[in-house]
Amino acid sequence: MASNEAPKKIVLAYSGGLDTSVILPWLKERYPGVKLVAFAAELGQGSELKGVEEKAYKSGADEVVVMDLRKEFAEQYCWPMLRAHAIYEQDYLLGTSIARPLIAAKQVEVARQTGADAVGHGATGKGNDQVRFELTYMALAPDLKIIAPWKDTSFELRDRESAIEYADKHGIPIPVSKKKIYSQDRNLWHISHEGAEIEHPDAEPNWEACLTMTVPPEKAPDQSEIVEVGFERGNPVSVNGKAMAGHDLLAALNEIGGKHGVGVTVLAENRLVGMKSRGVYETPGGTILYEAHKALEQICVERDTAHFKQQLVLRYAELVYYGQWFHPLREAMQAFIDHTNATVTGTAKVKLFKGRAMQVGAKSPHTLYDPQLASFSMEGYDVTAARGFIDLFGLPMKVAQQAKRW
Amino acid sequence: MASNEAPKKIVLAYSGGLDTSVILPWLKERYPGVKLVAFAAELGQGSELKGVEEKAYKSGADEVVVMDLRKEFAEQYCWPMLRAHAIYEQDYLLGTSIARPLIAAKQVEVARQTGADAVGHGATGKGNDQVRFELTYMALAPDLKIIAPWKDTSFELRDRESAIEYADKHGIPIPVSKKKIYSQDRNLWHISHEGAEIEHPDAEPNWEACLTMTVPPEKAPDQSEIVEVGFERGNPVSVNGKAMAGHDLLAALNEIGGKHGVGVTVLAENRLVGMKSRGVYETPGGTILYEAHKALEQICVERDTAHFKQQLVLRYAELVYYGQWFHPLREAMQAFIDHTNATVTGTAKVKLFKGRAMQVGAKSPHTLYDPQLASFSMEGYDVTAARGFIDLFGLPMKVAQQAKRW
Amino acid sequence: MASNEAPKKIVLAYSGGLDTSVILPWLKERYPGVKLVAFAAELGQGSELKGVEEKAYKSGADEVVVMDLRKEFAEQYCWPMLRAHAIYEQDYLLGTSIARPLIAAKQVEVARQTGADAVGHGATGKGNDQVRFELTYMALAPDLKIIAPWKDTSFELRDRESAIEYADKHGIPIPVSKKKIYSQDRNLWHISHEGAEIEHPDAEPNWEACLTMTVPPEKAPDQSEIVEVGFERGNPVSVNGKAMAGHDLLAALNEIGGKHGVGVTVLAENRLVGMKSRGVYETPGGTILYEAHKALEQICVERDTAHFKQQLVLRYAELVYYGQWFHPLREAMQAFIDHTNATVTGTAKVKLFKGRAMQVGAKSPHTLYDPQLASFSMEGYDVTAARGFIDLFGLPMKVAQQAKRW
Amino acid sequence: MASNEAPKKIVLAYSGGLDTSVILPWLKERYPGVKLVAFAAELGQGSELKGVEEKAYKSGADEVVVMDLRKEFAEQYCWPMLRAHAIYEQDYLLGTSIARPLIAAKQVEVARQTGADAVGHGATGKGNDQVRFELTYMALAPDLKIIAPWKDTSFELRDRESAIEYADKHGIPIPVSKKKIYSQDRNLWHISHEGAEIEHPDAEPNWEACLTMTVPPEKAPDQSEIVEVGFERGNPVSVNGKAMAGHDLLAALNEIGGKHGVGVTVLAENRLVGMKSRGVYETPGGTILYEAHKALEQICVERDTAHFKQQLVLRYAELVYYGQWFHPLREAMQAFIDHTNATVTGTAKVKLFKGRAMQVGAKSPHTLYDPQLASFSMEGYDVTAARGFIDLFGLPMKVAQQAKRW
Repeated sequence: MASNEAPKKIVLAYSGGLDTSVILPWLKERYPGVKLVAFAAELGQGSELKGVEEKAYKSGADEVVVMDLRKEFAEQYCWPMLRAHAIYEQDYLLGTSIARPLIAAKQVEVARQTGADAVGHGATGKGNDQVRFELTYMALAPDLKIIAPWKDTSFELRDRESAIEYADKHGIPIPVSKKKIYSQDRNLWHISHEGAEIEHPDAEPNWEACLTMTVPPEKAPDQSEIVEVGFERGNPVSVNGKAMAGHDLLAALNEIGGKHGVGVTVLAENRLVGMKSRGVYETPGGTILYEAHKALEQICVERDTAHFKQQLVLRYAELVYYGQWFHPLREAMQAFIDHTNATVTGTAKVKLFKGRAMQVGAKSPHTLYDPQLASFSMEGYDVTAARGFIDLFGLPMKVAQQAKRW
Repeated sequence: MASNEAPKKIVLAYSGGLDTSVILPWLKERYPGVKLVAFAAELGQGSELKGVEEKAYKSGADEVVVMDLRKEFAEQYCWPMLRAHAIYEQDYLLGTSIARPLIAAKQVEVARQTGADAVGHGATGKGNDQVRFELTYMALAPDLKIIAPWKDTSFELRDRESAIEYADKHGIPIPVSKKKIYSQDRNLWHISHEGAEIEHPDAEPNWEACLTMTVPPEKAPDQSEIVEVGFERGNPVSVNGKAMAGHDLLAALNEIGGKHGVGVTVLAENRLVGMKSRGVYETPGGTILYEAHKALEQICVERDTAHFKQQLVLRYAELVYYGQWFHPLREAMQAFIDHTNATVTGTAKVKLFKGRAMQVGAKSPHTLYDPQLASFSMEGYDVTAARGFIDLFGLPMKVAQQAKRW
Repeated sequence: MASNEAPKKIVLAYSGGLDTSVILPWLKERYPGVKLVAFAAELGQGSELKGVEEKAYKSGADEVVVMDLRKEFAEQYCWPMLRAHAIYEQDYLLGTSIARPLIAAKQVEVARQTGADAVGHGATGKGNDQVRFELTYMALAPDLKIIAPWKDTSFELRDRESAIEYADKHGIPIPVSKKKIYSQDRNLWHISHEGAEIEHPDAEPNWEACLTMTVPPEKAPDQSEIVEVGFERGNPVSVNGKAMAGHDLLAALNEIGGKHGVGVTVLAENRLVGMKSRGVYETPGGTILYEAHKALEQICVERDTAHFKQQLVLRYAELVYYGQWFHPLREAMQAFIDHTNATVTGTAKVKLFKGRAMQVGAKSPHTLYDPQLASFSMEGYDVTAARGFIDLFGLPMKVAQQAKRW
Repeated sequence: MASNEAPKKIVLAYSGGLDTSVILPWLKERYPGVKLVAFAAELGQGSELKGVEEKAYKSGADEVVVMDLRKEFAEQYCWPMLRAHAIYEQDYLLGTSIARPLIAAKQVEVARQTGADAVGHGATGKGNDQVRFELTYMALAPDLKIIAPWKDTSFELRDRESAIEYADKHGIPIPVSKKKIYSQDRNLWHISHEGAEIEHPDAEPNWEACLTMTVPPEKAPDQSEIVEVGFERGNPVSVNGKAMAGHDLLAALNEIGGKHGVGVTVLAENRLVGMKSRGVYETPGGTILYEAHKALEQICVERDTAHFKQQLVLRYAELVYYGQWFHPLREAMQAFIDHTNATVTGTAKVKLFKGRAMQVGAKSPHTLYDPQLASFSMEGYDVTAARGFIDLFGLPMKVAQQAKRW
């Protein structure tokens, strides 16, 4: 169990943005003498990580660790979730949820390597991310202290203005980005947007302002495009016949999908911490992959197995959204899921056009689709079989209906 | 229990098409002296019912009953299913499944009124529809004989050529329609297409050839359109502010949705009778309604209720697909669903563009969305609450992870 | 939202025991000038309530409200849960869980009647009961302050010794009961025991010391006894043919069951607040009712309905255990459950002997049990029906197994 | 696909009883020239198999194969089901269901070895067993013909009298057993009884007449007995500290349990083929194992994992009951289950007395039970943690209740 003493050395999840930059000097003031390790994870968030090392040192970090986690992220986190076909509340492909446990697990690793006694993050006290970070810390390293400035009542940098002023005062380089309208989180799998007009559930989001990885459908090409994804055991391995490592494959699909404006959703979702909130998500590559995976599962997975998997995965998606990646239930479910996906090998085609990704075909050496059975031809089919099936299948309902009437 | 004697009077589900037309004289030959009641249901299948009465008599019917069931179909069958938000295998909105029990229930009614001792249908022995018809007959009238020529080993009219020849010989009017490429079923909720290239799971369907209620996305307007649907207790009641009866509302949305090419899916699905088959479905109005209903549920239904409903509805969709509309489990589930939808009142906006229908906003007097809670503002929020929550929420996982390591 | 000011008038859930008695003067010290309403609920907890009014005044209460809630408890709380057939973690019949929301709801009622601005309870910060009380307060009266001394860091009466000393000092009547070995909670439905050797999961409980409502099986009569329970729509209405109000019926069954030592379980359960704990439960009457209700459901409820109900009720039991009685999901589930129990009318016989209650028969006017179908006689049964059933039922599994082998 | 020609060589599931004995000469008459392989499986059904080989030859078998499957049955069929903790309809421990797929799978093996083109069984057309046999045949060897005389309309030996007469005529040795009152099925795991008064759901079974593996509770010892079962990864490995192979362990527990009359249930259950039927089951050893396994799981399996497993296993039990042991869904579920049972290692004590088996304690090196957390001691516990937990856990319900009132 973590003690209540002040931390001596903290590994902080560091993004290079204003929010986590001001936390560095603030922690130095809050815990005099504390050593700070800024940990930055390359998860494919775009240009954000440029110069992150220098910036961290300038902001007060004693050590800086940058890790390129893109391959691990794609293959060890996104792919298992894709095999599950996990979707939260019908429309959210879990892009932020799936990244947090990886970052937190690596922070723990860095804490062990650098002899730190604490880990910390800059997530607020009203959101899901604090839970995702901290559950992972607790599961993997219950002895480490957890430092979360936003939940510290003495933390006062709660709006952009205070943060900029504080940064100025402490000589922290402020990104010369245009004023951020939305609160965003980006990685190789997706980008999320919250805040501004998105917070009003009856307002259409300002797509022009927020869309980042994708174009608005109106600006997508007038010509549709079909992309073919190859799978082995439920894992994507190639695009249009070209084998690729996980992160490269995802990047390639993000580009194709982004061009056609696919993978954008807006939803009012239920946070783990109890309130409803609204977000816009762009998941271009992931959306193509889900559509392709669905097409392939349709021909490779047996009916009752597929139906039960759908049910099980609702809970799996909850676990991922709730930050419980390292939960024994998630792990046991993964064993179920991976068993069902052992034969999900083959290719699927997805058509992209003006904001929609739609599967249009799939084939597999393990297909369960039997054209002879599927067709209307009655050749070789016992026309009397259905009679007995219906009689026995319908018997309980028939008896129940009669009892009701008597 | 139905006896084994030959039927004396059969109420046949009659569509006016070639398939059911030839069944009339065939039944007369098969059961000499039998009386035939041709029952045709107006479910919004378009022009198919024109002249159906005359055609039936010419084909050998002794009585003809035509019923306009569009309002009942929309409000008593489609709406309960919409409140459930039932979807079979992720993509099928159950358009054929939901219509069969209504037709069969009305056949039973007609049998009672006309003193018939049998009901019959022209569905084949390999498909789902035979089950849907017969389960309903069995549930509502177990004493009636079930006549299903396609499952009669002496039935020989199993292809179009034999049927046409037989029709010619018996003076049955043959519809001068162009050669049917696909096997189709249409009603106010949808049209389905099976057969031809659709039977090949790796082939993209020939959209130009099959699409009927919708245009291909490429031919949809370059301008998007937003439609606003009003709901009361989960039931759609207005479009763009104009109150409408169920069937009119559905027809209006079919037109709008069809124009924008929305609501088209293709899937390899699992039939109840065991094989996989592939179909194309067009559900323009239904797709808009599902998207609008989802948006409204997101703000009106509490989290754990919404999550459990998602799970329950997977089973509900199975029941509908399996033809078990009059099943006590479907009825008990409906009680659950209707309870959850008691506050689903308000409006939702859906944007239509080039084949995609996407919710972009919703509002409700019963909204559970609290802008103050949803926002990033920490004003009035206890920043320390999350600490205790995470500690206790995460405790079981933390203890389990530690035990694993020992 | 409840304000942070000191409470002016508190309605305290008061049991008359030492624990809640010392809380009265303590609250007066903690909140100078506060008015205290001691609320005691008669739930059939035995002799505990004798003299409770006098004791409360002596302990410092300004007002005392005692309500006899036994009938409401039995019929409006226990019966709905019985219709659900809810069991937590296979063995706990939820006796404490089901009583808390009723007490809390009545406290809110009393608060409204007496103009109080706060409600309070004496449950500790490690258990489930605090959650059950407070969730109900929050749901029904979010404006009321919640006072929970055990979670107040300034509360120091955390063990029996401090409490006795404090009581002495404040002139509070101390119950001259023998030293309590176990922490117990009793009502008409059950009694629970925690603490002492029960806390050691590998130790057999000291039955002689803890059993209260039941005799140890070794001391039960050598003669078995059969009790017949009558039900209407899933609700018990008579015992051995004699109609009774809910609380009388429960008391009668407790006596019969207690005599035969039935309804005792010990289990290591999972608390909502995250840890595992172990308890002994005595639920003699409830156990008989569950067994009888099961027997009747077996003949009155259709198969797939019964199977789905079993699954749904696992979640229902969680909700009850977690204190979420007034949760919209519990209410929607109740609609489902009550629908399934509309035909659960009839009688069931339960045999009691040396610690075991076992159903031995049931009958109902709505029985779905058809002796002709159940028997081995093949008379009137189509021996060929099963052939078609098995062929189609088994088709997906057969195809899947073949695909695996290729 | 199996052809429609007459079978040339049939492997028949042969029990040595009258029912399957008469089938041998009957098959010879039905299919002139057919070769018959009588396959008898030793599953611990008691003395029934004595002289089975001789009897089979006398009855007309051309080849006889007897296999001792007791170890495989216990360890590869019963144990996986025990790890699942599968129970059908609350009370049936699936003793017949679990044996059929093993027998059928071995028949297929024997068919391959002996060059047979058909497999057959003597189960009737109204029961579950025909499905269990045939689904396994279909899954493992779809090319083999299935011979089921009871579903052959020309089979006339449908009652005991006809069978005895036929046996006499064909010189078949008739077992000199007393007249069988009940239809029974016995193996190492259980014995089932159907027929006679058991078919009347309101009649208490005649225990004296039917009980076989157990004594009636009234005749059990007046002294209780505690048995300790050791488990490794969810599999029982020892009794009272003595390591045993699966079938020996089961036999030992059957004896101990039988002596105390434990493991007897009677229930009206729902058959797969649609009707309700009623049976008495004796599962003495299995009941002890389930109770012990439950006790150990309670301390070794994390809460949410345990809760989800309970739900999943309802479907697993259906699959076993429905004869779908070789179903891909059962196999995927087993992967889930085995993952959850990886830490279910330790010992559990079960107390046996007059018909009841009751767990009274368990211990494990992987226990998640933390006495410090479980106790009422608040030492080292953050009394304020629960506040935040309740606030956020209860937020959705609170908001929903408020919305309802507006």
